[in-house]
Amino acid sequence: MTNSYLLLEVKQTLTNVRLHHPLVHHITNYVTANDCANITLAIGASPIMADEKIEVADITTLSQALVINIGTLNQNSAAAMLLASKKANDLGIPIILDPVGAGISSFRNQTLTSLLHDIHFTVIRGNLSEISYLAGYKTQPKGVDATSDDCISQLDKQEIASLLAKRYRCVVVITGKVDVVSDGSKTYLIKNGISELQNITGTGCMLSSLVASCCGGMPQQPLIATLTALLIMGVCGELAAEKQTGQGSASLKIQLIDNVNTLSYTTLKERGQIEQTMP
Amino acid sequence: MTNSYLLLEVKQTLTNVRLHHPLVHHITNYVTANDCANITLAIGASPIMADEKIEVADITTLSQALVINIGTLNQNSAAAMLLASKKANDLGIPIILDPVGAGISSFRNQTLTSLLHDIHFTVIRGNLSEISYLAGYKTQPKGVDATSDDCISQLDKQEIASLLAKRYRCVVVITGKVDVVSDGSKTYLIKNGISELQNITGTGCMLSSLVASCCGGMPQQPLIATLTALLIMGVCGELAAEKQTGQGSASLKIQLIDNVNTLSYTTLKERGQIEQTMP
Amino acid sequence: MTNSYLLLEVKQTLTNVRLHHPLVHHITNYVTANDCANITLAIGASPIMADEKIEVADITTLSQALVINIGTLNQNSAAAMLLASKKANDLGIPIILDPVGAGISSFRNQTLTSLLHDIHFTVIRGNLSEISYLAGYKTQPKGVDATSDDCISQLDKQEIASLLAKRYRCVVVITGKVDVVSDGSKTYLIKNGISELQNITGTGCMLSSLVASCCGGMPQQPLIATLTALLIMGVCGELAAEKQTGQGSASLKIQLIDNVNTLSYTTLKERGQIEQTMP
Repeated sequence: MTNSYLLLEVKQTLTNVRLHHPLVHHITNYVTANDCANITLAIGASPIMADEKIEVADITTLSQALVINIGTLNQNSAAAMLLASKKANDLGIPIILDPVGAGISSFRNQTLTSLLHDIHFTVIRGNLSEISYLAGYKTQPKGVDATSDDCISQLDKQEIASLLAKRYRCVVVITGKVDVVSDGSKTYLIKNGISELQNITGTGCMLSSLVASCCGGMPQQPLIATLTALLIMGVCGELAAEKQTGQGSASLKIQLIDNVNTLSYTTLKERGQIEQTMP
Repeated sequence: MTNSYLLLEVKQTLTNVRLHHPLVHHITNYVTANDCANITLAIGASPIMADEKIEVADITTLSQALVINIGTLNQNSAAAMLLASKKANDLGIPIILDPVGAGISSFRNQTLTSLLHDIHFTVIRGNLSEISYLAGYKTQPKGVDATSDDCISQLDKQEIASLLAKRYRCVVVITGKVDVVSDGSKTYLIKNGISELQNITGTGCMLSSLVASCCGGMPQQPLIATLTALLIMGVCGELAAEKQTGQGSASLKIQLIDNVNTLSYTTLKERGQIEQTMP
Repeated sequence: MTNSYLLLEVKQTLTNVRLHHPLVHHITNYVTANDCANITLAIGASPIMADEKIEVADITTLSQALVINIGTLNQNSAAAMLLASKKANDLGIPIILDPVGAGISSFRNQTLTSLLHDIHFTVIRGNLSEISYLAGYKTQPKGVDATSDDCISQLDKQEIASLLAKRYRCVVVITGKVDVVSDGSKTYLIKNGISELQNITGTGCMLSSLVASCCGGMPQQPLIATLTALLIMGVCGELAAEKQTGQGSASLKIQLIDNVNTLSYTTLKERGQIEQTMP
């Protein structure tokens, strides 16, 4: 019942993205910017990357969503992130925060503290280390890749996501073997996806681009939009793995983006494994 | 008749690039730099990306062509573009301007105004929104992607290209369903290509790299060089689409670069659809 | 005999990388950063790219190896390279220097001089132009791509590598048709690889990432670690070429990374062509 209502909303999100091609302004890292741009186009949205502080407010103004990704943060981009985010807040444009490497340097931590103080983010999406850091839990971050899912129980993950969502009145995603998404009152688990995506750089960044694309298409429903993006990534990961048996990580990435580009709502519905948790 | 003479020149351009491997200095964006480098190598030229203002003049001096692409412009790269371009003008090295996102921010617009005032560009290549902006026509730019071809007639496009070419004594390209290239006295239409390339980021940037590669191989004939690059992109797009039926945008990009790498002049001649417009 | 001992060490290196996933901090260029991150993941290590001077020491401290690649050097990254390298030297973390474009600008040359004065590098890896420049030999560098192998004899190459290795008490690699690696007392030739890799940007950068990954897994044996990386790149290049007959440079890169991801030690042993030179 919930699911069939949910699925209608998921369908609407996908339709909106492909119909309206929301412009997604990215202030992001140079490592995965190309993949983020391509997956944004693949789902039907339109990417623009711009990080010069004297122009970001102009660009954000034209956009339907903003991605703040601190993967290769520097002092200039940190300043640009603040300016663009303030403009987005003023205009009611959804902002997705990808706190890449939260906890691994004072500079990143201070930038995150400052952003979370001044800006209202619509969605925060990270791996377990990153979200745990933001929630105040101590984990052992290892670079920008996630620590093992096994060090913490599924229930604790749900609690962390929900707690952080309440604190910042936003949607929070913890990606992992099972993805958790919560707006503080409702929490869903998405059980799609494949572990081989860990062998590709930027799957987290690409997911954040999909979240932003979906938020751009469904600005009043960030929880649904985010859930749609998680489903797309999970299902397309599975399809990619099936199509490329015996090859390696580089062709898996090609297959992943190909499948996002050709994805139908029917496939998403048939394969999607969403579960709402008990409150 | 014109065509057979033209084709001999096209052949010579391709031969020169593959024989002399012109070094193409790029001051460009970080989103598509990897694809630009790879397509430059694929056609037979040699790419170098360098944007630090204290070294760009040294690098330009070694080069046979210079690309100025403002996709992720910042204050440092804007300064570097001016220095490198002045050096290129001093040495007679062809410069290709790719005015990515012209019209979308004051910073880009001011930088373009300043560059066009101080520098003689050999070729300006953009989509309809970008070239219209430079020509002083009002359009509705949407980020860095082109506005619809349909909002303006083919004849008007030809006029805009020709007008801008005369104003700046250069070659102007408007890419779209039909590409228009003009040096102000002659105008050609190239009718090759596929619309699916819009699902890949950086096809415009890659085309500018091909234009620069061809100008580096045929520096005295920028119109022919540019026309050759347009043919290569259009024909290789078609070949890519034929080889990858049923897949998506990421494998299309792989096929595109593969086909540039293995392209023969014979294929270019057989498939090329060039038309000279009436004056 | 030497070979069977060597091969055991090569096996140990590969095993260590896949077991311990060393974190490899890259301060590198934006052109090939994505490929470098992906090949680092493909071999089993974990990449992190970070170049803001106020955070690099924090990142290096967490890492098991550091790559310094000057491909798109700027004044900020040059400062970050010095800070990160000093921290790595303090902590005994291996550093790999990739002197991209050595000799092509005063800025690069001065930065290299300064780095080589203040820092002890574990491995220096470049093409013939770059290493010759560092050794004080005059060659004609052409951008960032290698000059022809033919302009200098194999014996001279071995001497240059050995001389530079002695001067800086490090391992030196000259890549080319035959790769030369020396620590000043022992010198090996690796005869694997394919010339088609020249049509892909960043194969040198990717190799440096593999060297760093292997050094991270085998920190006490940089010569063995480097030799392992050269074998991996050479053998996977050959496998890639075999699997993709008739296609072009873009699919060759995909195959290359795929093969690194799925490589077994058995394949490495069967195909590896290592030769120790006479002293």
